[in-house]
Amino acid sequence: MNAATPATPGATPDPGTVTWVPGAAGSLHDVDNLPYGVFDLPGDDAPARVGVRIGDHVLDLAAAAQALAPAYGPLLDTPRLNDLMAAGHTTWTAVRAWVTDLLLDPASEDSLTLHPVASVRLHLPFEVADYVDYYASEHHASNVGRMFRPDAEPLLPNWKHLPVGYHGRAGSVVVSGTPIHRPSGQRRPAGADAPSFGPSARLDIEAELGFVVGRGVELGTPVGTADFRTTVFGVTGVNDWSARDVQAWEYVPLGPNLAKSFATSIGAWVTPLEALEAARVPLPGQDPEVLPYLREDGPGGYDIEVEVELDGEVVARPPYRDMYWSPAQMLAHMTVNGASLRVGDLYASGTISGPERHQRGSFLELSWGGAEPFTAAGRERTFLEDGDEVVLRYTAPGARGRIALGEVRGTIVPAV
Amino acid sequence: MNAATPATPGATPDPGTVTWVPGAAGSLHDVDNLPYGVFDLPGDDAPARVGVRIGDHVLDLAAAAQALAPAYGPLLDTPRLNDLMAAGHTTWTAVRAWVTDLLLDPASEDSLTLHPVASVRLHLPFEVADYVDYYASEHHASNVGRMFRPDAEPLLPNWKHLPVGYHGRAGSVVVSGTPIHRPSGQRRPAGADAPSFGPSARLDIEAELGFVVGRGVELGTPVGTADFRTTVFGVTGVNDWSARDVQAWEYVPLGPNLAKSFATSIGAWVTPLEALEAARVPLPGQDPEVLPYLREDGPGGYDIEVEVELDGEVVARPPYRDMYWSPAQMLAHMTVNGASLRVGDLYASGTISGPERHQRGSFLELSWGGAEPFTAAGRERTFLEDGDEVVLRYTAPGARGRIALGEVRGTIVPAV
Repeated sequence: MNAATPATPGATPDPGTVTWVPGAAGSLHDVDNLPYGVFDLPGDDAPARVGVRIGDHVLDLAAAAQALAPAYGPLLDTPRLNDLMAAGHTTWTAVRAWVTDLLLDPASEDSLTLHPVASVRLHLPFEVADYVDYYASEHHASNVGRMFRPDAEPLLPNWKHLPVGYHGRAGSVVVSGTPIHRPSGQRRPAGADAPSFGPSARLDIEAELGFVVGRGVELGTPVGTADFRTTVFGVTGVNDWSARDVQAWEYVPLGPNLAKSFATSIGAWVTPLEALEAARVPLPGQDPEVLPYLREDGPGGYDIEVEVELDGEVVARPPYRDMYWSPAQMLAHMTVNGASLRVGDLYASGTISGPERHQRGSFLELSWGGAEPFTAAGRERTFLEDGDEVVLRYTAPGARGRIALGEVRGTIVPAV
Repeated sequence: MNAATPATPGATPDPGTVTWVPGAAGSLHDVDNLPYGVFDLPGDDAPARVGVRIGDHVLDLAAAAQALAPAYGPLLDTPRLNDLMAAGHTTWTAVRAWVTDLLLDPASEDSLTLHPVASVRLHLPFEVADYVDYYASEHHASNVGRMFRPDAEPLLPNWKHLPVGYHGRAGSVVVSGTPIHRPSGQRRPAGADAPSFGPSARLDIEAELGFVVGRGVELGTPVGTADFRTTVFGVTGVNDWSARDVQAWEYVPLGPNLAKSFATSIGAWVTPLEALEAARVPLPGQDPEVLPYLREDGPGGYDIEVEVELDGEVVARPPYRDMYWSPAQMLAHMTVNGASLRVGDLYASGTISGPERHQRGSFLELSWGGAEPFTAAGRERTFLEDGDEVVLRYTAPGARGRIALGEVRGTIVPAV
């Protein structure tokens, strides 16, 4: 292949278009991925700053900006992605193109600082403004409906007309790796009149995908589905830890609160939406037809595969492509009443579950409310035990091969 | 009375302890009140900064700090109360004592800058971190229960065991005076199978009281009821605008979302908790006894009278003293699962309603779901019409006489 041959997506790339970073080409973190994070080095005095992951390394973007593009300094020499996001969609594209060029051009190597990803400390990648959690998987909503209302239609009447969601606690969103204290709270034992207080006995995960808003929009200005790509900066994995016993007792009539507000884990890396262009797929189909403000041109779904790992064993593989509601629809719904957006707003998909048992994204569903234990690492399991480690992993087609989103890892520590 | 006579709370104050600010002594904004706000002057280039209200004036605290107490500059020469709050309870007390001394000492007058309150522009007084809304009035919850579940117990089983609440949208909290766009959304007409989209036809108010958290607390550290006074900086009025038709359709099973997220108005002034010491009263009584983490020593309630004014006429007088759950209990509940607190967290009481019809804090209750119109300015009314102006006013006993909290004002403008 010579320089005159146009690049073919999916074909072996021209060596001249292969990154010089050792081990990165062909990996899950090639130049078609390039997720952003915030890092520092333990024992180093330099403040946390923006980096990009390439292969098994982190490129220091604050240093790169200082050396090569001082105009980007204020966006990158900062301990949060909010400044880069606030610069707007055109800048997101420009910075990504600049980083890609640096990583493809061997002449850049001497000007850049790479750190092994294992050597850096990763921080919450952005300041979370508001956090909204949806309930966008028909399989998940139906499973929950069947368990809790066995004699009724599994889906409530509103479910196929609007993406049902609620606001979560932004202040307890934590970065992957943060230990999760088992929450205590009120729960009413079966048959009892009054609740008792103590550590949750039905602590669960929810494997979700999160969308990070990078554009502020004033009150009174609905954002349509067509504005999704200029409004959402990128995606990150989400584990919406849930105390099912607390939830069952508290949630009427205003929804879940303490059952969720103790912690929500997100990935340390935000993958730009641009990296997921090759992963776009049509939604499975919506019937009845949605109201006009929820209609969308082009494929609204993403072909992202999720793995749920418990204590070293994959216990579920939820497929994001089976989600009923698209992220553009969730965005349009969230603002159709005139609600404002802020840079750093996070909205999540809700539990990702597919039609098969091994595709369910919560232990509630995997164990059918605790009645049908599943097996992990040779043991029968239902809900989370102290010491359990859960890792959510996400991969998708990229422009050159498969790409990985940042994992979401958390270990359960005993109640305080 | 001479200087040797100790001051008696409630007695006529010694002239030497009367503020020199014209018109302030004996007003609703005497030195026993001293709410903080953030202001600037239209046409002036100076950035917004912290001020305190005294009588019909605003004392410029940024200027006062510059002239007399430079150490307070970083807390007061800033366009948000978060910095003052983050300085901690001891500093809250010290700053209030300093301001009180300035306003009582005639020698201070020449060093200080006062602006007529009518001449300043007031801003959102603090950056809202998370916003949680409770449902703490037994009368309100019972009224809503009777309307929506006429054949069942008005209160759900959990209601007297925990303060039911949910997270609202922090990004759409606006300051008093901000026009409120009528929200559009999905609502299902009676008897219809499918929803339609359009402006809410049942737009409502909720007269509430808000509590502003001034102390950050890390994840995993429950805050007990005894820590209320060192954790909550002050109070402000809240109007939790609600689209009842949107709410009725969307709220199962995850609670209200779009019905509330379009706007929540708060007062421009935050009244320090210290100013409300004289307003403390016992709760009406809790039966069954609450779980240990919700127990509280001393009076948990506040004797705050609320007026709801619609188009110039007072249409309701909800009494805060009748609330079932105390703000210290709401705080303890919010954190008992280990949820963190951030400076600027706001939690609100939920609609304040008393036992009598004229004490109901929402139009839903005042008009019994629209079935029993009430009268305002000579007309029969149910829900809000475009052009309506609602003002919530709050007064309470202070150390010297009655004090007023900041009003919460909003005018409904047509849907976008």
